[in-house]
Amino acid sequence: MRAYDLILKKRNGGELTTAEIEFLISGYTAGEIADYQMAALCMAIYFQGMSIRETADLTMAMAYSGDVNDLSGIEGTVIDKHSTGGVGDTTTLIVAPLVASCGVPVAKMSGRGLGHTGGTIDKLESIPGFQTEISQTEFVQQVNQIKLGLIAQTEALVPADKQLYALRDVTATVDSIPLIAASIMSKKIASGADGFVLDVKTGRGALMQNYAQSEVLAKTMVAIGKKVGKPTVALITDMDQPLGYAVGNALEVKEAISVLSGQGAADLTDLCLHLGAEMLVLAGHSPNQESGYKVVEQKLKSKAGLEKFRELISWQGGDPRVVGDLSLLPQASYQTEVRSRQSGYVSSIDALKIGSIAMQLGAGRKTKNSSIDLGVGIELKAKVGGYVERDQPLAVIHSNQPLQQEPQLVLNAFSISQARPQQRPLIWAKITEADV
Amino acid sequence: MRAYDLILKKRNGGELTTAEIEFLISGYTAGEIADYQMAALCMAIYFQGMSIRETADLTMAMAYSGDVNDLSGIEGTVIDKHSTGGVGDTTTLIVAPLVASCGVPVAKMSGRGLGHTGGTIDKLESIPGFQTEISQTEFVQQVNQIKLGLIAQTEALVPADKQLYALRDVTATVDSIPLIAASIMSKKIASGADGFVLDVKTGRGALMQNYAQSEVLAKTMVAIGKKVGKPTVALITDMDQPLGYAVGNALEVKEAISVLSGQGAADLTDLCLHLGAEMLVLAGHSPNQESGYKVVEQKLKSKAGLEKFRELISWQGGDPRVVGDLSLLPQASYQTEVRSRQSGYVSSIDALKIGSIAMQLGAGRKTKNSSIDLGVGIELKAKVGGYVERDQPLAVIHSNQPLQQEPQLVLNAFSISQARPQQRPLIWAKITEADV
Repeated sequence: MRAYDLILKKRNGGELTTAEIEFLISGYTAGEIADYQMAALCMAIYFQGMSIRETADLTMAMAYSGDVNDLSGIEGTVIDKHSTGGVGDTTTLIVAPLVASCGVPVAKMSGRGLGHTGGTIDKLESIPGFQTEISQTEFVQQVNQIKLGLIAQTEALVPADKQLYALRDVTATVDSIPLIAASIMSKKIASGADGFVLDVKTGRGALMQNYAQSEVLAKTMVAIGKKVGKPTVALITDMDQPLGYAVGNALEVKEAISVLSGQGAADLTDLCLHLGAEMLVLAGHSPNQESGYKVVEQKLKSKAGLEKFRELISWQGGDPRVVGDLSLLPQASYQTEVRSRQSGYVSSIDALKIGSIAMQLGAGRKTKNSSIDLGVGIELKAKVGGYVERDQPLAVIHSNQPLQQEPQLVLNAFSISQARPQQRPLIWAKITEADV
Repeated sequence: MRAYDLILKKRNGGELTTAEIEFLISGYTAGEIADYQMAALCMAIYFQGMSIRETADLTMAMAYSGDVNDLSGIEGTVIDKHSTGGVGDTTTLIVAPLVASCGVPVAKMSGRGLGHTGGTIDKLESIPGFQTEISQTEFVQQVNQIKLGLIAQTEALVPADKQLYALRDVTATVDSIPLIAASIMSKKIASGADGFVLDVKTGRGALMQNYAQSEVLAKTMVAIGKKVGKPTVALITDMDQPLGYAVGNALEVKEAISVLSGQGAADLTDLCLHLGAEMLVLAGHSPNQESGYKVVEQKLKSKAGLEKFRELISWQGGDPRVVGDLSLLPQASYQTEVRSRQSGYVSSIDALKIGSIAMQLGAGRKTKNSSIDLGVGIELKAKVGGYVERDQPLAVIHSNQPLQQEPQLVLNAFSISQARPQQRPLIWAKITEADV
């Protein structure tokens, strides 16, 4: 087998066999296939696509290119939740304790990630003392004891994906749906869970801005899960305006605590209940989405989820008092209000713009080695569909240095109209294995 | 400027600017742009193509990536002839002396090339003593004296093309028409001639097997010539059966001498007269193709071309007696006749198959460092349209080792039919600057 022939085959629209895909990934990981051949292949895949079978094979070849977590010591079915990433997306911090409080184990490994804000791990690290690096044995023990653990991904997972992603990143081959789907699903499979609830975002702040592409990505990932025997369901959810009110690491931890206290943003709360319900169904805990939703909603109302979050913090070395005293979380030095210049309905809030400003403030990493400023970010004071008076605050910028253009940029992210805007749905669609 | 952005632009169907193309080629040649980025770019070009303007810019950026020959010391207009390569294509050895014998300077640098047989330089080296490496000064002096010089290309020409071709060769991006056209034309332009007559082959033994693609390639190259101010004309000519009768290095030198003696194959002779006529027109020696054709034909009849070839051999250190005594050329040890198993018309002779067998015999290079066996090859005894009786020879295999499958393979290259076959044209089309 020669890499050349496989590039040619894909370039000409052919379908690579399982053995050919394994040859490519193992050869590339071993350094036997050159970067330039892999780059040409990725570009050919960008243009010619991959079948579901090819994409599933690629996923598995990457998933098994390094260590695969063994979660078999955990009692019960472990369902992982994964979001394709958005702005102000703090669902994991809410859904994980809610589901765990139902008695369903949640053993989640998260990344730090490059993005507008940090990843789940960065957010958790804004809780004083919180440890995200725990041995595999302790992690399994903890999940068996309290049904919940949230730790950082180890470096040894999916080396093929790391290598391939770095190459795609410099060869303009990142935005190929089969390559994106295989990258996400390989990491999920290597993390060791039994099934997956995917939150595929759509809109200006999402990886896939248009709905059609988001749907293709969702269907591809659900089909991969089906193909490899890992039950998977995807919700396609809105990411046109930021989710909830908070964008920033400590700000999102505060918001998660508000939601778990029953006082959170309606959109974020509702999405978390939907995602939690799907997890309960996949875990075999609830017979269907409706009953699952009611169970999770009950855990929210009873504050069982909040208690579980406090328990998690204690177990992982953090200061559990933050749950009752948000001032223990990092605070930025400056709070600057951005006020509306006119009265009217908020017709849109550009999630991408808000995310970019948050990153500039220091909430996210520009490069792999950037450090994160946990206290900074943007707190929205209005959401799409709300009516604001002239001079009413639209947002508060939390920063650790005096601002320059940022207030104007935040203002520009808001559109105000006289007519009441049409609301975009929060949940656009649900993709199950029956749909693919 | 970043290579990443230019890959993305091309991938998305954009047109690269002149400055962007220069940045890519100079950066790649300097080692500042990585192979993997260039590989991704080539694959994007394979799918998205390039405009004529982009292709001409790429051509010039490559042509000037190293030394460019200075032929300004040669009196008169220097027109180069280039063939895209075929089987039994010995036109240079015939056209060059014919045109020179008209008083028009022919200063040609040729490659050795990878292919079914050697390049023009390899063929010339089958003449005992013939020197193909001459200093630039001597070369110019020789052309001014006898109007003719045929030497080997120096290594310092078009380093960007060498580097890019080596990359394309391992990333399945060779067969992209703009990349092929820029590769050919950059080498031609660096060779220093004032204008070009291109012989673009079409058919089974050609780079482009189908006519439509050959026409696109021809038009692209003529358009490049027009764009960069180098008058260019292309003939699209047949390469479905081998050209003439001989396939092999010394065998083709013998055939060239036969043609120049007025006793050569009709197709090869006619094509050489057409190509010579076009060269006379571009050089400003003849007002149009018809009158040019008559002039060259007269030089053939008078044997002035043959004399010029003898003069060339003398000037470049070869033994001029070969012109009158073909036995002074390398001879293979074995001659094996391949006879027809049935009577009928020869309906096709697969040039690619014949070429591949010749290469296996040792007439061509399998890799850059292979050596060539100058005496071996295949001599056809029948051509398409001819009638053969059962047991009549179709070909003679010239080899230096006992044969195995070769006679059967040669036989398989011939198709015999009862009906008289339709003849393919020798010259399919002529593309001038008015056509592009």
